Amino acid sequence: MPKLIAKVGLNGYGVIGKRVADAVSLQDDMKLVGISDIIADYRIKTAVEKGYLVYASVPEKIAEMRQSGIEVAGSLEDLIKKVDIIIDCTPGGVGVKNKPLYEAGGVKAIFQGGEKPTNVQTSFVAQCNYAEALGKQFVRVVSCNTTGICRSVGAVHKKFGVKKVRVVLVRRSGDPLESKTGPINAIIPEVHVPSHQGPDAQTVIHDLNIVTAACKVPTTLSHVHFVMLEPKSRLTREDLIKTFTDAPRIRLFKAADGFDGTQAILEYHRDIGRPRSDVWELPIWEESIATTSDEIYWVMQVHQEAIVVPENVDAIRAMLELETDPKKSIAKTNKALGLVK
Amino acid sequence: MPKLIAKVGLNGYGVIGKRVADAVSLQDDMKLVGISDIIADYRIKTAVEKGYLVYASVPEKIAEMRQSGIEVAGSLEDLIKKVDIIIDCTPGGVGVKNKPLYEAGGVKAIFQGGEKPTNVQTSFVAQCNYAEALGKQFVRVVSCNTTGICRSVGAVHKKFGVKKVRVVLVRRSGDPLESKTGPINAIIPEVHVPSHQGPDAQTVIHDLNIVTAACKVPTTLSHVHFVMLEPKSRLTREDLIKTFTDAPRIRLFKAADGFDGTQAILEYHRDIGRPRSDVWELPIWEESIATTSDEIYWVMQVHQEAIVVPENVDAIRAMLELETDPKKSIAKTNKALGLVK
Amino acid sequence: MPKLIAKVGLNGYGVIGKRVADAVSLQDDMKLVGISDIIADYRIKTAVEKGYLVYASVPEKIAEMRQSGIEVAGSLEDLIKKVDIIIDCTPGGVGVKNKPLYEAGGVKAIFQGGEKPTNVQTSFVAQCNYAEALGKQFVRVVSCNTTGICRSVGAVHKKFGVKKVRVVLVRRSGDPLESKTGPINAIIPEVHVPSHQGPDAQTVIHDLNIVTAACKVPTTLSHVHFVMLEPKSRLTREDLIKTFTDAPRIRLFKAADGFDGTQAILEYHRDIGRPRSDVWELPIWEESIATTSDEIYWVMQVHQEAIVVPENVDAIRAMLELETDPKKSIAKTNKALGLVK
Amino acid sequence: MPKLIAKVGLNGYGVIGKRVADAVSLQDDMKLVGISDIIADYRIKTAVEKGYLVYASVPEKIAEMRQSGIEVAGSLEDLIKKVDIIIDCTPGGVGVKNKPLYEAGGVKAIFQGGEKPTNVQTSFVAQCNYAEALGKQFVRVVSCNTTGICRSVGAVHKKFGVKKVRVVLVRRSGDPLESKTGPINAIIPEVHVPSHQGPDAQTVIHDLNIVTAACKVPTTLSHVHFVMLEPKSRLTREDLIKTFTDAPRIRLFKAADGFDGTQAILEYHRDIGRPRSDVWELPIWEESIATTSDEIYWVMQVHQEAIVVPENVDAIRAMLELETDPKKSIAKTNKALGLVK
Repeated sequence: MPKLIAKVGLNGYGVIGKRVADAVSLQDDMKLVGISDIIADYRIKTAVEKGYLVYASVPEKIAEMRQSGIEVAGSLEDLIKKVDIIIDCTPGGVGVKNKPLYEAGGVKAIFQGGEKPTNVQTSFVAQCNYAEALGKQFVRVVSCNTTGICRSVGAVHKKFGVKKVRVVLVRRSGDPLESKTGPINAIIPEVHVPSHQGPDAQTVIHDLNIVTAACKVPTTLSHVHFVMLEPKSRLTREDLIKTFTDAPRIRLFKAADGFDGTQAILEYHRDIGRPRSDVWELPIWEESIATTSDEIYWVMQVHQEAIVVPENVDAIRAMLELETDPKKSIAKTNKALGLVK
Repeated sequence: MPKLIAKVGLNGYGVIGKRVADAVSLQDDMKLVGISDIIADYRIKTAVEKGYLVYASVPEKIAEMRQSGIEVAGSLEDLIKKVDIIIDCTPGGVGVKNKPLYEAGGVKAIFQGGEKPTNVQTSFVAQCNYAEALGKQFVRVVSCNTTGICRSVGAVHKKFGVKKVRVVLVRRSGDPLESKTGPINAIIPEVHVPSHQGPDAQTVIHDLNIVTAACKVPTTLSHVHFVMLEPKSRLTREDLIKTFTDAPRIRLFKAADGFDGTQAILEYHRDIGRPRSDVWELPIWEESIATTSDEIYWVMQVHQEAIVVPENVDAIRAMLELETDPKKSIAKTNKALGLVK
Repeated sequence: MPKLIAKVGLNGYGVIGKRVADAVSLQDDMKLVGISDIIADYRIKTAVEKGYLVYASVPEKIAEMRQSGIEVAGSLEDLIKKVDIIIDCTPGGVGVKNKPLYEAGGVKAIFQGGEKPTNVQTSFVAQCNYAEALGKQFVRVVSCNTTGICRSVGAVHKKFGVKKVRVVLVRRSGDPLESKTGPINAIIPEVHVPSHQGPDAQTVIHDLNIVTAACKVPTTLSHVHFVMLEPKSRLTREDLIKTFTDAPRIRLFKAADGFDGTQAILEYHRDIGRPRSDVWELPIWEESIATTSDEIYWVMQVHQEAIVVPENVDAIRAMLELETDPKKSIAKTNKALGLVK
Repeated sequence: MPKLIAKVGLNGYGVIGKRVADAVSLQDDMKLVGISDIIADYRIKTAVEKGYLVYASVPEKIAEMRQSGIEVAGSLEDLIKKVDIIIDCTPGGVGVKNKPLYEAGGVKAIFQGGEKPTNVQTSFVAQCNYAEALGKQFVRVVSCNTTGICRSVGAVHKKFGVKKVRVVLVRRSGDPLESKTGPINAIIPEVHVPSHQGPDAQTVIHDLNIVTAACKVPTTLSHVHFVMLEPKSRLTREDLIKTFTDAPRIRLFKAADGFDGTQAILEYHRDIGRPRSDVWELPIWEESIATTSDEIYWVMQVHQEAIVVPENVDAIRAMLELETDPKKSIAKTNKALGLVK
């Protein structure tokens, strides 16, 4: 029988971590016990202002953090003792180093897309493979780009089958808060084609025939994906629109309504009062949805800071078996956060 | 005797207008009767979603707006009939063309910094010259840059006097929502030195001896100003910090706390839940505050989208004499919006 | 019998025009009689410094140009009288308006990719369809992006056949000299998929089954294309490398040699002394060349300022029948300019 | 008696080093014996293509460099044995570590602005203090920004005296070849005011009363400086223009001629065929030159890649006493490179 209120700890209060902390706090079947990090600047002080208990991920950092005026409740190991599950949002490659700590503490743990899939039992996108995460100890919420691909391509895959899908990803080079990451004026291709995002999508949709290629460009707001998909059974543009309309966490935007680029869709989310202007849904430009006799196309935007946030919440619910029905978990998360669907 | 609830209309629901509309709606002594514009895309549809009554600034646009699905309550002239005051947030140079309409309608009007000071009776920054706006029919809230200069330089001017002040403005080239404005990779100086911001500050602080110079750079987030000020009476760094700490709507940020640039200060305002990440206060980098025997220095950030928003609210209050004490109006506005001071 | 020295006029001394003027001047079978424009600033003064005769594209501009210190040799109509052919490098859509002038003057004319293919007899890429332009009066050198596609895809098409090719174009938003074009921080997709570049390639390679999609990003240096091609007959990676190595005006660059992005390839061309750092060849990242059983991939860079320059020279030669063998014309142009092959 | 042909070695073939190597090669009283570095990619291969002998700055790198196909002539110590002087263009802070090597080899050495002035006998700007470098063993060519300040402010200082000068520097954040340096969308102030550039100018113009402040912005092309100078004796705008016109390596550009920003001035230098579009002179916007009764103003552009290049050549000549008259050395360097004056 599931615990009524899951006790959740979060390690790594960065771009993703701080958002997941807020999202967990909004759920009525979870409680954020504390967050853990190693930094001592405004980012962590803001956590204190919000009333989050702060732990030190590395004991040696406690002194520095306290000196900076942060009340430190203890070490990460102290936090682990108090929780059912840890959400590890540390930078890519650090999570795997933390894993023994979680194992020793006997807690479950969620990792992010920067960790290798081989370090976990399941790679996860709620609307694709929720059931696979039920009761698991170690689950990985895949990266923002893979999440976007799984949501949209996965929806087509489920209804019509995918013979082959090609995705070209135009990636943002840094996040809005970064002051040193570039480039300022260049396009940097991933020269090894196919790129790694294709195999990563297969960790969620195991039989997907996918090829990806990618580059980085000088923007901080979002990634943009171009999808070219050969379906197994023929479908019309209306079928495709309906598929996206029915699927959770996908939302259509019209360029004709002023949504001419990534910046407009973010401005809209600023305007409607989204926290941090976050776009948890996957925006697809409606005009870009096109079909030919044997291929379908669309262009979508992935808000790298936000899209995986609801996924982390659902992953908690699945792993702790707070809810076994994916639809119910998704609906519950959506309602608590304020997603449109 | 002042009206208890001021009836406010807003013309020009753009970057500034939409923020002022929200700010007015949060005041208990004002009511936003409606907003007026000529566009028909997501920007105005968001106003409808918020429950704002939408009017058409130009009658010929009504059809187009309705066709786009927007319920139009009438023309700007209809709106004028229902209000005590119009806040004109139309693009620079358009406001003056609207003035005869406001005069004919017998309403008061606030214009923004893009209009010439000669078109109004008073140019306005709440903490500098609130009294000058009392009861006036036409007032101009000065531009974001001039507001930033008046708040900080004005505070020093009041307490210590200013022999001469030099300000170099490093301006953002476009707003976050823009998709066409550049440059992408260049610095564009205003080649006529001194630049126009100096004389503009004098429309508020009439006896200020000020010289400004400016350039545009490829960023969307904020302007940064370098201030070099020769005070009339000598002051210490502590005096200067106290002056800024005491003055309303100025806030100190430490680079040592992670606030290394404009993007970090905006990220903080995202993190604390500010609507649209708005920075209504004027941030000054604490480390940059420095004094020599005859000169003082500081570096400050002006969030071009937000800084004038509380000023517009105070201007309404002064013009309609809802409140004659600037401190009380400022405190009231601050509290309703959520400014720190 | 062909004329020994072709008399060439150029109308539109902009980003492309000034480069074509220089390129024509370097040929021993052509003479640049003069250039024509309507501007009066440094760009045209530099033409004067180079010794080019300057004409006014619009008679009304003569006074202004002379006032600015430019010696004006006459009007565009005067220039037309003195030449065999005009290269029209005016902005897209202006060329077609000039066409009647060229017809009236009885001269041949080359247009650029901004003009519609229906306004000319042949759309042109030297290594693809030189023969089609022989003796023609009106020819269009296709846009930079289409040129890049035709050179590389065309080479594969010739040797192995193309069942279907998909290209995603990540476009630069402005040229280095521009001070107003943006966006500063956004990705702007072309929301209508397939985009126009596919059909444009078909004006040169008529039977090409091609689908394209595109976006604009905040960089000024180059476009980057991702190519996914299903060949008619199977080929190995070595076959593909050999095809590109054998084809003219394609050059392989290794990321492992430090060529990690568009900026590095341009820096190399600065280092080797290319005029204006121009990349007339089509760079392909060698590591990106990949093959599967039924598909091949590569990533390439298109220097928008430069790639069409040698094409314009070859087009002159074809139209005036100075040379009927494409290989000889290409080799001659390459040698005069300094292309590697 | 001076050597007729100075034997010059160069250590650090980066952004500055490769330009200085080319510049030295163009002088008839110097010979570039070889260049030394530790990298093995396109940057150093281009040196090989130019015919420069390549040495390894660190012996352990020889194998890697040879493996990459570069013919390595020996170690840095081998190079030192063959030359009279080494120009050290290694990254800031590395030069001082190389100094013992140069001392042991008994050669003179020039360092760049990234090294501390206390490590050398003289900090150098040719037109300011050439005589101070005569015969010295260790000289430092100051940074690009300091060079720009010394050239222009120094010229005024010499003729009219400087009571006090304030300079605000808007710095480029990365060089064109960089793929990782940012920020993408932020302004990063140097929060400690005054900034270090003021004291650095005093290492050249020892009695200069100067205050500087600075920020970094997302551009790669150039720095821009705003100068506000109180002269000792009054001067007119015409005096100031004449001062800049008479001084070497300063050039006036008019915004009215289309030079509206840094990108236009670089485009002009691309157009006139400058190698790498280098701007060795200091451009000043003519319209920005302004005077009041007690203060003068101008705005200038510093091309960070190029401005110190002729200074390095002059420094060689001074240190080896190839020429004792600064005017003659400057004129000789200018002529060999192609500066306008």
